Amino acid sequence: MAGSSFGTLFRVSSFGESHGPAIGCVVDGCPPGLELGEEDIQAELDRRKPGTSRHVTQRREPDTVEILSGVFEGRTTGTPIALLIRNQDQRSKDYGNIAQSFRPGHADYTYWQKYGIRDYRGGGRSSARETAVRVAAGAVAKKWLRQRYGVVVRGYMSQLGPIEIPFVSWDAVEDKTNPFFAPNLEILPQLESFMDQLRKSGDSIGARINVVAEHVPAGWGDPVFDRLDAEIAYAMMGINAVKGVEIGAGFASVVQRGSEHGDELTPEGFLGNHAGGVLGGISSGQDVTVSIAIKPTSSIRLPRRSIDLQGRPQLVETHGRHDPCVGIRATPIAEAMLALVLIDAALRHRAQCGDVVCATPKISS
Amino acid sequence: MAGSSFGTLFRVSSFGESHGPAIGCVVDGCPPGLELGEEDIQAELDRRKPGTSRHVTQRREPDTVEILSGVFEGRTTGTPIALLIRNQDQRSKDYGNIAQSFRPGHADYTYWQKYGIRDYRGGGRSSARETAVRVAAGAVAKKWLRQRYGVVVRGYMSQLGPIEIPFVSWDAVEDKTNPFFAPNLEILPQLESFMDQLRKSGDSIGARINVVAEHVPAGWGDPVFDRLDAEIAYAMMGINAVKGVEIGAGFASVVQRGSEHGDELTPEGFLGNHAGGVLGGISSGQDVTVSIAIKPTSSIRLPRRSIDLQGRPQLVETHGRHDPCVGIRATPIAEAMLALVLIDAALRHRAQCGDVVCATPKISS
Amino acid sequence: MAGSSFGTLFRVSSFGESHGPAIGCVVDGCPPGLELGEEDIQAELDRRKPGTSRHVTQRREPDTVEILSGVFEGRTTGTPIALLIRNQDQRSKDYGNIAQSFRPGHADYTYWQKYGIRDYRGGGRSSARETAVRVAAGAVAKKWLRQRYGVVVRGYMSQLGPIEIPFVSWDAVEDKTNPFFAPNLEILPQLESFMDQLRKSGDSIGARINVVAEHVPAGWGDPVFDRLDAEIAYAMMGINAVKGVEIGAGFASVVQRGSEHGDELTPEGFLGNHAGGVLGGISSGQDVTVSIAIKPTSSIRLPRRSIDLQGRPQLVETHGRHDPCVGIRATPIAEAMLALVLIDAALRHRAQCGDVVCATPKISS
Amino acid sequence: MAGSSFGTLFRVSSFGESHGPAIGCVVDGCPPGLELGEEDIQAELDRRKPGTSRHVTQRREPDTVEILSGVFEGRTTGTPIALLIRNQDQRSKDYGNIAQSFRPGHADYTYWQKYGIRDYRGGGRSSARETAVRVAAGAVAKKWLRQRYGVVVRGYMSQLGPIEIPFVSWDAVEDKTNPFFAPNLEILPQLESFMDQLRKSGDSIGARINVVAEHVPAGWGDPVFDRLDAEIAYAMMGINAVKGVEIGAGFASVVQRGSEHGDELTPEGFLGNHAGGVLGGISSGQDVTVSIAIKPTSSIRLPRRSIDLQGRPQLVETHGRHDPCVGIRATPIAEAMLALVLIDAALRHRAQCGDVVCATPKISS
Repeated sequence: MAGSSFGTLFRVSSFGESHGPAIGCVVDGCPPGLELGEEDIQAELDRRKPGTSRHVTQRREPDTVEILSGVFEGRTTGTPIALLIRNQDQRSKDYGNIAQSFRPGHADYTYWQKYGIRDYRGGGRSSARETAVRVAAGAVAKKWLRQRYGVVVRGYMSQLGPIEIPFVSWDAVEDKTNPFFAPNLEILPQLESFMDQLRKSGDSIGARINVVAEHVPAGWGDPVFDRLDAEIAYAMMGINAVKGVEIGAGFASVVQRGSEHGDELTPEGFLGNHAGGVLGGISSGQDVTVSIAIKPTSSIRLPRRSIDLQGRPQLVETHGRHDPCVGIRATPIAEAMLALVLIDAALRHRAQCGDVVCATPKISS
Repeated sequence: MAGSSFGTLFRVSSFGESHGPAIGCVVDGCPPGLELGEEDIQAELDRRKPGTSRHVTQRREPDTVEILSGVFEGRTTGTPIALLIRNQDQRSKDYGNIAQSFRPGHADYTYWQKYGIRDYRGGGRSSARETAVRVAAGAVAKKWLRQRYGVVVRGYMSQLGPIEIPFVSWDAVEDKTNPFFAPNLEILPQLESFMDQLRKSGDSIGARINVVAEHVPAGWGDPVFDRLDAEIAYAMMGINAVKGVEIGAGFASVVQRGSEHGDELTPEGFLGNHAGGVLGGISSGQDVTVSIAIKPTSSIRLPRRSIDLQGRPQLVETHGRHDPCVGIRATPIAEAMLALVLIDAALRHRAQCGDVVCATPKISS
Repeated sequence: MAGSSFGTLFRVSSFGESHGPAIGCVVDGCPPGLELGEEDIQAELDRRKPGTSRHVTQRREPDTVEILSGVFEGRTTGTPIALLIRNQDQRSKDYGNIAQSFRPGHADYTYWQKYGIRDYRGGGRSSARETAVRVAAGAVAKKWLRQRYGVVVRGYMSQLGPIEIPFVSWDAVEDKTNPFFAPNLEILPQLESFMDQLRKSGDSIGARINVVAEHVPAGWGDPVFDRLDAEIAYAMMGINAVKGVEIGAGFASVVQRGSEHGDELTPEGFLGNHAGGVLGGISSGQDVTVSIAIKPTSSIRLPRRSIDLQGRPQLVETHGRHDPCVGIRATPIAEAMLALVLIDAALRHRAQCGDVVCATPKISS
Repeated sequence: MAGSSFGTLFRVSSFGESHGPAIGCVVDGCPPGLELGEEDIQAELDRRKPGTSRHVTQRREPDTVEILSGVFEGRTTGTPIALLIRNQDQRSKDYGNIAQSFRPGHADYTYWQKYGIRDYRGGGRSSARETAVRVAAGAVAKKWLRQRYGVVVRGYMSQLGPIEIPFVSWDAVEDKTNPFFAPNLEILPQLESFMDQLRKSGDSIGARINVVAEHVPAGWGDPVFDRLDAEIAYAMMGINAVKGVEIGAGFASVVQRGSEHGDELTPEGFLGNHAGGVLGGISSGQDVTVSIAIKPTSSIRLPRRSIDLQGRPQLVETHGRHDPCVGIRATPIAEAMLALVLIDAALRHRAQCGDVVCATPKISS
């Protein structure tokens, strides 16, 4: 099916393969009048782009974005915004051996079984390269959310394999010396050392990313299926390599009692945020908090058992250029997906409930 | 927005409040020719219905379903199937005090802020009563999946609060003496004792439910946004009280290495299932495995701080009839949601790829 | 596919067969706070219901509607509104012969070929009885449009077979003695005489219906595919028996010159309305004017050539109870469909453009 | 809203302004394995492109298409196909005066009122230039429909202003000397003379286009809202300048009797095609026949009354480069839209009804 579109009112339709001519998207439904330039989008793309440290893939892609439509004299017009990113550093010959077999843990096998054909070069459509497009579209959403509602969406790495990363500050996340989006500068040497050893071993590792949206007004999200948390789960699990999603207390809720979990309300605000900012599928005014599990990259140098196109046993070693931990570059992607969910929810909310006047004051979060 | 529809090709549109005249749904897009009677649906509803043990709400609802359309001479016609369940045991006066304040951890506050009006009786639309409709619709999906593809969808409780429940057998889950959907009969006394104490304390508890779909063919699911796992996450997080979703290894992936996580392939099948049956958003032929976290019920007898409709401080104690662990009845709901995702994916797959012939044999899972 | 839902934000999901237990729908996405009772809906249903004059089907259906959800203390809550109409006067035995053959010009043949099964009783799902549901849903839309924006949607019969009906007044349309929705009382004897002769002949006739929406604000409708006029065309052509749709000048545009067709603008308003209230797919502030062609009923007493279920030649005569001109009851249906398009467009417009301030005054229409 | 996507399973998301850097689209959901090259698409684009005769706009656009994704080694992969057409011959200065006022009959006024901002250069998004994208996407649909089902979609001009054009042959339509898509070579001098006079007068004219799809199998289309004819009406009314749509007998049905209109069935086929190939919203196996009314271009040299951005009276004369009859280039566009409707219906049909076996032989049309 047409599965490459995201959102109902603010809709992103993505295209592109890792080693094709270009990747990009059409962003349809953006409110008109938003100041928007390529630099707004580029700033976000630069946070995700490859080749910026020794801990990520060495593919050199400037990820330069071109706005093809929907912006006139520096403002959005309400018509579709097309964003184009030309691929530049393809080395398709690196992938010749992938053409004949399937990497364990990779979409190679399933694309082949589904479509009977696949662009194997660099993983084709299943490559994490596709996520650049999400970051680009998310940049538009982020800007509007911030300008219109003061919503701030940001994230960080909270765990790298076995290393839990205590939150220290948002400043740490944005520090120039920090290629991990870790909220803690003291832990950097430990992370770097871990990654250096991992890279030498030819293996890969998982990670955990947390994302937060602050200042989300109460009322966004539509019960009972299109709940805000349900759409966040859909958005997050739709990122390459994500295997788990939590809202608020997440799996910790399993062992909690109601008297502990339920966040009490006072005129001054909520006394906790186990809810993660969503109650009954609708935002509560608390911070929206999300945590995701990212699996280790499946493209590794270590030899693994697999089969070839004829179904015969085969050993697979993957050389190309890969991220040993896709989690390292995942923070801007998760932020973008959260922003895309929120802008759609914001627009849908004002469509249905634009006239609502509620007698009860909204409490601060 | 219109958030009460689920699915693209097999679409369920749900309606109803806990204490209104009825709940029900329209199931549109069902393949024609499926043998279907009210007894097929009733059998699933009976698994979820309230009042069947002392560990769940004592509301007495027979949950009798009536098929209003879409079935002729015992077979589906391809036109919309309307399912109606009349509410019978409303005691709305129990909820008078809820009308004036907001239960901590409950949707009371967010519905009120969003819509400026709410049917507070029994939680109205946000009540778990609404999930009966999902079970009813899921029964149709389950039957078709089983008949057409041999797909079996079933689940069990794997943790009740602090008590982890080791999997013993599917027979245990279905045992008549087992009101918990626990896959282990020996642990029942422990679960019952825990629940008895909990009920007396006036508190509530969380749980974890696992769901599995066996015999799902390789190829279902649509990259890059409408991935099979993304839609499962959306479906599961859309169930009342769910705070976390895992596919396959889930959050355990965070500490795994690629050489451990990636399931190797052999001509005889995969050598593991960390993937949970989904690679790149497409089913692999392995079992689809899902795990969800269910938070403790927010309606508890213990007094809690909250605010009233005017925003003034207020203590809230909830009496009515409630499940002290909504997880106990959640298994059939989670099964239903997984079945709804799968039937939609199945139909969409054959729409686009109905002509695909793949040279590589599908390996057994 | 799931083809029985209409609308994106204000979505109607319809169900029901002519001779099944009931027809009805779920109306999802209605703005909260609208005063709504069964009497609001019943009033519109009574305009369409059968058996009210000798010129329409003699089936006796009170078309009594029950609101099952979504309304609390007389106001909409923003949750799905389920509407139920029980069928009461089925005489399925009248249709025994239809079971074995296909009426020329009827959906009998195509349903059978598509689904391999059909509920032939009274035409099943393809019966015009299904349109009662649209009228019911449309009543909700009409009320909101009128209260919120002052939009008035109304229609009339402008031609009955060869008899063109000059517009005299809206009062005539609503006159109690007028079963035709004709905007002209003087022509009634001619219409009645024509219908009496037609009925005796055992034949049927086509008609033309005009619908107008007044006071539609400028700005509704979304280019380039989901234009307001495109969605009106979809809505109208989706009514049983409709074969043509015109907006504004319609087919008369073919012979017009640009200097005649293009409606000039002045500070006091437009100087004409060839546009039919839509320019570039967006409402202009002029009246939205629509005209539709309704074919003659295919169920007629006159013998016609057809085939039976085995593909063998067969003569078909249809007795049952049928409208000799389905156009006579079509006016409320066309009004309902136009209202459904408009409410969805209104909600979508304020979602995207709720913050727009346009320097140019809106001119009156 | 996000109104620039078309289709559910085969979805086209369009972007681009007349004088922006580029126009294009993402075609998502295409079945994999279809042989596809730029030449397939270019051939259709060349039929629509401007500047090919003196009777159309003199803007020189080669309309060269680039495939950016979704095709690998000459075949579609099932992933999104992005199509890009760079604009080359913009002369935006021609449109300076349009910036300050509104052309009567044009979308200038409504875009401005809706969005509060507009790209006025060449009509921006409302320009007929956008339709090139539809032709490009339609080329993919056409090829698949023809290869998979033998469906042939083609059209012709049946009326140019007052001149009705009798159908002679499809060969005439394709004749190199025929810039009108007229199915009649003898009438060409009359058409050319008419156009030459019109052009001198500075005025414009309407037209009628007919489109036919042959060999459409019985069973496509989904009652009750997403009928095949309803979606065709939506598609056609969504083309710039279209004001009316007919299926089969269309408005002629108004004066027909049932005994005339209803197409009789025989074992050898239908005895007529007043239905236009659609009964009850489902294809019958007859040819699908559609006719559309195209209004005269609103950009004309003759002076017309209008208002400026401040709402003050103003005379408008439009010079730029315009088609005096947009109907002349409309045939490939209407064909494309019909093809897009049909491919989506084909995919949806096999999704739901892929297992249907109907006992009754399909009759030839």
